[in-house]
Amino acid sequence: MRIALLGAGRIGQVHAPNITAHPRTTLAAVVDPHDPSAHALADKHDAVVMSEAAAFADPSIDAVLIASSTNRHADQIEKAASAGKAIFCEKPVDLDVARVEAVADHLKAHPVPMMLGFNRRFDPNFAALKAQIDAGKIGKIEMVTILSRDPGPPPIEYIKVSGGLFRDMMIHDLDIARWIVDEEFPELSAQGAVHVDPEIGAAGDVDTAMVTMRSTSGVLVSISNSRRASYGYDQRVEVHGSKGMISIENIRESSVHLSTQDGIRLEKPMHFFLERYEAAYRAEWDAFVRLALDGETDLPSIEDGLESLRLADRAAQQA
Amino acid sequence: MRIALLGAGRIGQVHAPNITAHPRTTLAAVVDPHDPSAHALADKHDAVVMSEAAAFADPSIDAVLIASSTNRHADQIEKAASAGKAIFCEKPVDLDVARVEAVADHLKAHPVPMMLGFNRRFDPNFAALKAQIDAGKIGKIEMVTILSRDPGPPPIEYIKVSGGLFRDMMIHDLDIARWIVDEEFPELSAQGAVHVDPEIGAAGDVDTAMVTMRSTSGVLVSISNSRRASYGYDQRVEVHGSKGMISIENIRESSVHLSTQDGIRLEKPMHFFLERYEAAYRAEWDAFVRLALDGETDLPSIEDGLESLRLADRAAQQA
Amino acid sequence: MRIALLGAGRIGQVHAPNITAHPRTTLAAVVDPHDPSAHALADKHDAVVMSEAAAFADPSIDAVLIASSTNRHADQIEKAASAGKAIFCEKPVDLDVARVEAVADHLKAHPVPMMLGFNRRFDPNFAALKAQIDAGKIGKIEMVTILSRDPGPPPIEYIKVSGGLFRDMMIHDLDIARWIVDEEFPELSAQGAVHVDPEIGAAGDVDTAMVTMRSTSGVLVSISNSRRASYGYDQRVEVHGSKGMISIENIRESSVHLSTQDGIRLEKPMHFFLERYEAAYRAEWDAFVRLALDGETDLPSIEDGLESLRLADRAAQQA
Amino acid sequence: MRIALLGAGRIGQVHAPNITAHPRTTLAAVVDPHDPSAHALADKHDAVVMSEAAAFADPSIDAVLIASSTNRHADQIEKAASAGKAIFCEKPVDLDVARVEAVADHLKAHPVPMMLGFNRRFDPNFAALKAQIDAGKIGKIEMVTILSRDPGPPPIEYIKVSGGLFRDMMIHDLDIARWIVDEEFPELSAQGAVHVDPEIGAAGDVDTAMVTMRSTSGVLVSISNSRRASYGYDQRVEVHGSKGMISIENIRESSVHLSTQDGIRLEKPMHFFLERYEAAYRAEWDAFVRLALDGETDLPSIEDGLESLRLADRAAQQA
Repeated sequence: MRIALLGAGRIGQVHAPNITAHPRTTLAAVVDPHDPSAHALADKHDAVVMSEAAAFADPSIDAVLIASSTNRHADQIEKAASAGKAIFCEKPVDLDVARVEAVADHLKAHPVPMMLGFNRRFDPNFAALKAQIDAGKIGKIEMVTILSRDPGPPPIEYIKVSGGLFRDMMIHDLDIARWIVDEEFPELSAQGAVHVDPEIGAAGDVDTAMVTMRSTSGVLVSISNSRRASYGYDQRVEVHGSKGMISIENIRESSVHLSTQDGIRLEKPMHFFLERYEAAYRAEWDAFVRLALDGETDLPSIEDGLESLRLADRAAQQA
Repeated sequence: MRIALLGAGRIGQVHAPNITAHPRTTLAAVVDPHDPSAHALADKHDAVVMSEAAAFADPSIDAVLIASSTNRHADQIEKAASAGKAIFCEKPVDLDVARVEAVADHLKAHPVPMMLGFNRRFDPNFAALKAQIDAGKIGKIEMVTILSRDPGPPPIEYIKVSGGLFRDMMIHDLDIARWIVDEEFPELSAQGAVHVDPEIGAAGDVDTAMVTMRSTSGVLVSISNSRRASYGYDQRVEVHGSKGMISIENIRESSVHLSTQDGIRLEKPMHFFLERYEAAYRAEWDAFVRLALDGETDLPSIEDGLESLRLADRAAQQA
Repeated sequence: MRIALLGAGRIGQVHAPNITAHPRTTLAAVVDPHDPSAHALADKHDAVVMSEAAAFADPSIDAVLIASSTNRHADQIEKAASAGKAIFCEKPVDLDVARVEAVADHLKAHPVPMMLGFNRRFDPNFAALKAQIDAGKIGKIEMVTILSRDPGPPPIEYIKVSGGLFRDMMIHDLDIARWIVDEEFPELSAQGAVHVDPEIGAAGDVDTAMVTMRSTSGVLVSISNSRRASYGYDQRVEVHGSKGMISIENIRESSVHLSTQDGIRLEKPMHFFLERYEAAYRAEWDAFVRLALDGETDLPSIEDGLESLRLADRAAQQA
Repeated sequence: MRIALLGAGRIGQVHAPNITAHPRTTLAAVVDPHDPSAHALADKHDAVVMSEAAAFADPSIDAVLIASSTNRHADQIEKAASAGKAIFCEKPVDLDVARVEAVADHLKAHPVPMMLGFNRRFDPNFAALKAQIDAGKIGKIEMVTILSRDPGPPPIEYIKVSGGLFRDMMIHDLDIARWIVDEEFPELSAQGAVHVDPEIGAAGDVDTAMVTMRSTSGVLVSISNSRRASYGYDQRVEVHGSKGMISIENIRESSVHLSTQDGIRLEKPMHFFLERYEAAYRAEWDAFVRLALDGETDLPSIEDGLESLRLADRAAQQA
């Protein structure tokens, strides 16, 4: 499968080596309005630089990986679908629910394999948690607790265009909740606060938030988010069921334990999401290949993105 | 200090040895409408059996420990205060907010040292968590997560008179939230479900619940409760602040680790609250002695009981 | 069972409340050459002060607990046995193998229930480890690793009369090795060093030591000792078998975890052996009561003390 | 730097992608007597297949990575040194001390950058432990405990030519001990047993072993090895110093915790050494590049291999 990568920025640079290393895919083309970035990445992977239009028109391109800026995603998905390319798109599709609905409609009219980059589902720890739940290890799910904190806030300029904490950050946790519980959540309440940076508040956003949801069958979900955790990247999930509880803990920078008169010191969790989720990005790409070439199902779809965005919207209105 | 113990049931039997073992207190009298229980406990501790009226009238009795059934608490507090005794009372004062307010008024008119038995504050682990927060180890508090699950539900008869999950069980967590954050919570949302036993639902109660609260300064609190945890008594708290996070983990039955081809097996958390909180009951009694004899402050007061009951009421109405 | 306690020092004060609290034993008499200590302890427990001779002669005394200074143990055991008293004796019986052999012979001639205070076997964690091994959880034992470090060295005066690290400190670990493996150890090698205090070396002892042993069936045992561990009382055991590994970890002062930019800080292990082994001392006394009154077997005997002392002697000669 | 890889077997296949991925090295040639293996590996990395003689003679080859069978190592090192190539060689150089001494002499006469593949030193966890020790976090080293167990024994045919447990397996731990303590060990005692497979005993080897060593300054080291650990690959180190203790724990397959009525189940340690030490192999190659191109020192040398082999020989004679 020959791939055109749309977007040569940070996240594009994460995906490129996975495309190259995968035995069934080749990075054929890089598309980016910033020419030097496009050329640097293309050269590194023996790919060519193309314009977006050329990439969609080129019949030798089988699939596109959309890692451009968010405001380009919806358009690019529609054009790629019209061109019959398989599509892997970084989340979010768009920050506006109506626009995402339109894209979903377009995809119904132009059906191609399409997957959304909710990378956390593919982390080996999250995947192991889900597998054990599906195997019945904790019985019927009753409560889910999701704790998600970033090491520090992104630049205020990013926050202003990000859609806010709920649409940019908590959307990952909302997706995880829907994925684990496998139900929709008619009831939702949200609370937010500004503790990290008053500029975030001035921009109309919060930097600290809690959401509680109740699913159709009565599963209760609690999600906690903060834009800052001094101790590193904090990503934990705990699922309580009729027969037990299952949880995943953070991955520490090393397994060193230091015992002194000050106590026992363990290493912090890994600090940066690209490092923490390195294996997830590899597994995610492999899943997309299986979707496109083998027809694998149960992968994050545009409907998943749409539903999580709707929940984020409701939370943002309440908080 | 000579103590009259009102109530020779399970919780009275927990307190009696602590009264006896404390160097500054003596168990002088046991009061219980069930005569054989009163005599058995009194004999074991070289105390006498008295009627309630006699205990309040006896000038040699300095203080009462109220461990009777909940519906007797309010009356006994008022009588003890009128008689000038120092009062330790098991929670709750009463299930009705108006009645507790009346008791609080009575105590203002008859001021005596009075402490409520929120035992969890005195557990060495909770106390160490609070001390480190007060010492500034995590900076300013931003979020609190409280997870509290009982090994199994009490008998349905008990549930029917208990005031329900929020007033009987979550009230401990509400107290802990107020104690840690040291602010009131004007905003509260609650969700509940019946997962453990449909009879609990039939009795008008829930057995699974989540509450989110927002304090005056914007601290967010999440509380999760279940009447059942197959793996034992689950009592954890995690507090996230501007400079870090502090948490307490469960106490396991032993420190044994078993590593086999099935993984690494740690022991379950201690199963029963009397065993889990044995040290807390001792420390709680010591705190009351310091309150009565040394004037120590900052101990759980009737106002703490009242405010937690108001939060429980609001949660019960929403869930 | 009425008990005479020989020795009102630190360890006698640990045992006294357990004797009193046990439903089947009463502390009847306290014997100690230091009169004020004897009276203080006796008064606290409603016991009388007696001379040693009087205690052995008193037919109402059923058993003695020997917690006197080490150089008195052997004599007192022999006199108590001659007087037909059941005997609980703190380890060691004596520092001289020949003297212990003589005591063992005396006990054969004057058979009474007799138990040695190897308290560690009765710690709930060690007991749970042994129970799971006996239940076959790790298959056949192949290797044992014992790590034992004290928070700090005892006074140099104590070290000079203690018999040295191997006879005073490692003897506990040698007993644990024999108890777990349930075989003798014909092969032993030892190495020692002086790292903690040169005065200990000047006194002819070591403060740091490792012993390796091989049992008759080929089980390998490694024991590590240090007189100092800045992080508290370090007592761990790990047993590797044909089907898995089982270990016990230290007990921490509390379950608090503090996560900051410096890492995750857990509390130190409990610092002091009386606090760490509080439950062990209670369980140990209960075991002795079952030995004396119910004939329970498999408790630490004088032969166990003798064999561990022989191993300690061999190690001391090699190191 | 253009590399000739000698050996296209399992370990050669581990190194090849690291050579290719490193920005300063290229895999130029593959040498292997088994032609199909050589071609398969060469094709995958755009390298050519060469004879050993051609590789040494080719002036465009800057360095060789020796991953051939053990009995070829010594010869290949000498030829590569004579040809002026930088040399990375998998351990061991040879199983015979005299032969290794001869190779060391040859290298003195033909000085080239040369590094031995003691991969464990480059594992991020081992490296973090060493860095914290070097930074003085535990003060002066006093005791080291190394526990090393393989998931299962290699084929008996391999064991017969491996030099035995001490020269094949414990040599890694002996190197780690020398690396951490940074002293030689004049005193050593060893004990061994056959618990895993009687065929190993019939081949004159042991499958379970303990070694204790004492360094020139009195640091005590305990090493435990087993050819089998049902729970996975067990590799832990604990270093005790004057100011504290530092240890590294195993890396588990995932961070999942499952709490049920059977206890809390953590995942097993990673099972296979290539997976467990994936990062170590990458870091090791990077170190060699820095040695060859930048003159970095303090990397595992032939003298390190020689000294560890001498210790292994002494242990094998005693056990």
